[in-house]
Amino acid sequence: MTSRAPDPGRRNPRSRAAILAATRELLAEAGFRALTIEKIAARAGVGKQTIYRWWPSKGAVVFDALLALSETPEGAESGTPGTVELPDTGDIDADLRTVLRATVAEFADPAFEAPLRALYIEMITDADLAADYRRRMAAPINEAKRRRLRTAQEQGQLHPDADLDLIVEMLYAPLTQRWLLGTGPLDRDFADRLVTNALHAARAPGAAAPDDQRE
Amino acid sequence: MTSRAPDPGRRNPRSRAAILAATRELLAEAGFRALTIEKIAARAGVGKQTIYRWWPSKGAVVFDALLALSETPEGAESGTPGTVELPDTGDIDADLRTVLRATVAEFADPAFEAPLRALYIEMITDADLAADYRRRMAAPINEAKRRRLRTAQEQGQLHPDADLDLIVEMLYAPLTQRWLLGTGPLDRDFADRLVTNALHAARAPGAAAPDDQRE
Repeated sequence: MTSRAPDPGRRNPRSRAAILAATRELLAEAGFRALTIEKIAARAGVGKQTIYRWWPSKGAVVFDALLALSETPEGAESGTPGTVELPDTGDIDADLRTVLRATVAEFADPAFEAPLRALYIEMITDADLAADYRRRMAAPINEAKRRRLRTAQEQGQLHPDADLDLIVEMLYAPLTQRWLLGTGPLDRDFADRLVTNALHAARAPGAAAPDDQRE
Repeated sequence: MTSRAPDPGRRNPRSRAAILAATRELLAEAGFRALTIEKIAARAGVGKQTIYRWWPSKGAVVFDALLALSETPEGAESGTPGTVELPDTGDIDADLRTVLRATVAEFADPAFEAPLRALYIEMITDADLAADYRRRMAAPINEAKRRRLRTAQEQGQLHPDADLDLIVEMLYAPLTQRWLLGTGPLDRDFADRLVTNALHAARAPGAAAPDDQRE
């Protein structure tokens, strides 16, 4: 998955990387509420004004710090700002397995999951922050997931009536739940079973007809 | 759903109800970490020793306080301690819709969801508490869900190879995610769509064969 590269031309890449790394570390150490621009600046070895010049708020730095983890090494050059795309080899089963296995690997990486966990805890009690997260981080990614499923649907790999919005939630919510609460192993086998079963649902006749109670 | 009634004979029902109500209120007000046996006793108007005599730990009171919300009015008399059963009318579609709609209604009730939210936040950072929750609260309920699906499977309403453990997670994790993060409306329509799609997955041939990538 490629990812946003916010205004790379305007910023010193080394300072930007230091600021985002400091933000992730501090978030993992003490959570969102204790995080301040002052602490980020001190940890990153930059002036506060550098951060204020590049980001409008603490939340904006946090979201960029998490988005940066999904950037490919050449992301800033190759990516169009604001675009996220899932792989498309023409095989929806294989592509979803690739993407869900990558998500499993991200959740196993403390550098990724510790700051995200701190942010989730905050979002559970802060509806405004959760809405901001949905708009800035989750929405573009969820739209990319739905876009990939729609392409498969147009190619006849999924049922024309499949409830694609719901399929996305059934694919990812069980992963998120196991990650947040440790309710079971979070491994490739689990990712593959989710893909298999979600695609079964997406291929069934009448999948999008809740009033049609039995096919 | 009927629910556990822990040792009702040993306890004064009025004191027990007051203790559990006080626990839920305090949990919703200030979270799990700030909760103490002293505060529960003061709010419930009982002595600390009354609580220590009936419950081994703060966590045990909290779990009973949440379980008590699922008790039917006659629960203490009719329920066998430790048993939870899903409705079984012989129609798995209708029964799952009944149960998921009831879960949606519980999440809309502040008296239920506020203390549970406080507990979830704690569990996200406390693996021991999460494990205790799974063992004492989630496991009996999840086993009841799997049991109901197995009965349907034995009656030929689901595919013999259906991955029932995963179906339970695909049914409930999207509900929990919408509740925790507000990622979408949590209503009867959503509950019904989850049931429809999860049952499509459970009826597909080869549902439990992750290595069998295309049916």
